Amino acid sequence: MLNESIKVAQTLKYAIIGTGAIGGYFGGILSKSGQDVHFLFRSDYVFVKDHGLKVDSINGDFILPSVQAYNNTLDMPRCDVVLVCLKSTGNKDLKHILPPLLQDNTVVVLIQNGLGVESDLQKDFPDLYIAGGLAFICATKIAPGHIAHLDFGRLNIGSYSCPDNSILDRISTDFQYAGVQTEVLNLHNARWRKLVWNIPFNGMTVVMNTTTDALIGNADMRQLLHRMMIEVIEAGNMSDLKDNPIPVEYADEIMRMTEDMTPYSPSMKIDFDEKRQMEIEYLYTRPVEYAACFGYSMFCVSVLEKQLKFIQSTINKKLS
Amino acid sequence: MLNESIKVAQTLKYAIIGTGAIGGYFGGILSKSGQDVHFLFRSDYVFVKDHGLKVDSINGDFILPSVQAYNNTLDMPRCDVVLVCLKSTGNKDLKHILPPLLQDNTVVVLIQNGLGVESDLQKDFPDLYIAGGLAFICATKIAPGHIAHLDFGRLNIGSYSCPDNSILDRISTDFQYAGVQTEVLNLHNARWRKLVWNIPFNGMTVVMNTTTDALIGNADMRQLLHRMMIEVIEAGNMSDLKDNPIPVEYADEIMRMTEDMTPYSPSMKIDFDEKRQMEIEYLYTRPVEYAACFGYSMFCVSVLEKQLKFIQSTINKKLS
Repeated sequence: MLNESIKVAQTLKYAIIGTGAIGGYFGGILSKSGQDVHFLFRSDYVFVKDHGLKVDSINGDFILPSVQAYNNTLDMPRCDVVLVCLKSTGNKDLKHILPPLLQDNTVVVLIQNGLGVESDLQKDFPDLYIAGGLAFICATKIAPGHIAHLDFGRLNIGSYSCPDNSILDRISTDFQYAGVQTEVLNLHNARWRKLVWNIPFNGMTVVMNTTTDALIGNADMRQLLHRMMIEVIEAGNMSDLKDNPIPVEYADEIMRMTEDMTPYSPSMKIDFDEKRQMEIEYLYTRPVEYAACFGYSMFCVSVLEKQLKFIQSTINKKLS
Repeated sequence: MLNESIKVAQTLKYAIIGTGAIGGYFGGILSKSGQDVHFLFRSDYVFVKDHGLKVDSINGDFILPSVQAYNNTLDMPRCDVVLVCLKSTGNKDLKHILPPLLQDNTVVVLIQNGLGVESDLQKDFPDLYIAGGLAFICATKIAPGHIAHLDFGRLNIGSYSCPDNSILDRISTDFQYAGVQTEVLNLHNARWRKLVWNIPFNGMTVVMNTTTDALIGNADMRQLLHRMMIEVIEAGNMSDLKDNPIPVEYADEIMRMTEDMTPYSPSMKIDFDEKRQMEIEYLYTRPVEYAACFGYSMFCVSVLEKQLKFIQSTINKKLS
């Protein structure tokens, strides 16, 4: 099967797993552009069946009055592309969720943050074609079946275990046709680059219980965030980005970009505020462990990791 | 003057600067034992003039009905020994507070936490005999002129710039006579050893907003605290404890000791809770800077330092 282009139908059949802000937006805009999209819902299933899916977007609001909505993958058709838009804390369920959707050559794209999601999934599905997706978007679910798209909107994808990029290029073309900026790139490199922002800002907004603008407005905190970014860059470069290392100046670029952002709560801060499980495993523990395999100690990031685990255990105790 | 024993009177005249929990307890117990002790008060001055000083101690409660109390060092006699029991955040005032108390051979003992308090004071008073004191005590001021001594009670002292240990031995004898366990030891070594507990627990209870028992009851947090202790030990040993290094096993010892303690809020956590300035400078910034001079990076401790500075600036903004 390897080294052979994936053979798929003329028109791709898409499944969206986890129709929250990310899944609702990207699936919604694909569906609006005419693609054949099938959505898995949990709590919003009945509401969307009755009322459709509503997206308020900075690029123009739209409503999909009739959505191909499901509350169980057993009822869904087999698809060419499965876009997984769950929080990575729910990935253990993929083992049971995915099989009814899979046919020969199905590609599963994990639109998630962090490092290691693809390799974990591959363990359960050794022959599956897996790709990763990196969403650069500010979107939130404001009501059942109602997504607000507030800023940005790019979706980059990259192969983890696809035989080649042909199917990813087709997905990319579909998204571009739908008006989404997208690019097919080196997944591992892209994941590490995204961690340069995600690692300092997600955890630190939680531990300091604040927003990005407050962190970046404090000189001591800026130093610390910059130090952590350098640690992520060095870890990535030490491990396996040798062919295409991240320049250290990328940290300054990310810092400037964040300065220009409106006050922002990263996804982990929102999970924390809403007492949900935080994505500590793939955003912190795995990168730290991965770097350690290459002899690099992410000292500062480890502090944040342990603090987050302590906070999570305190929340879980209160919830139980 | 160096290499010559300090010549002092038969009986030492003591001044206590900063009569909070520490100054009230150690000054009070010295006074009770018959020593000539003069206390500088701020807010409690009038109350203590009228009602005296009350100490509830695990070793026996006592009241000093008539205390040599002052609210200004200009009114105080010159003393042989000045015990500074202020928070180190108030040390900039010593420049103005101390001069009326000083005579030839006065020794100023800084009973404070952290690293660098003595060297800073020496810059303002180049010829002054300076020593440091390390209090191992759980005490708190529960009302004006009313101290509660809850646990422990040791006071170790060491020379910073005394010509020899003779005066410190006399102070030590006075304290032992008063029932206080005390020892004269190498100050710099003792300060680093105390930092092995102070650095992880003071800052982490603030940042995690909890007590020592909750921290130590969490496996991830234990790992982090232990890692920080090792960092402090390595920093101390790399800098200038070569003759008498702290063994790495000291971290395990400190961990076990803390397990056996009742749930405890370190002094910085109390300062945080009561919205006072935290002793970040001498407990964190100076040790980090000092170690850096010897080429050692205290990565994990630096994270805590920056987080504390961020928290302090947030508190200060709310207060202003």
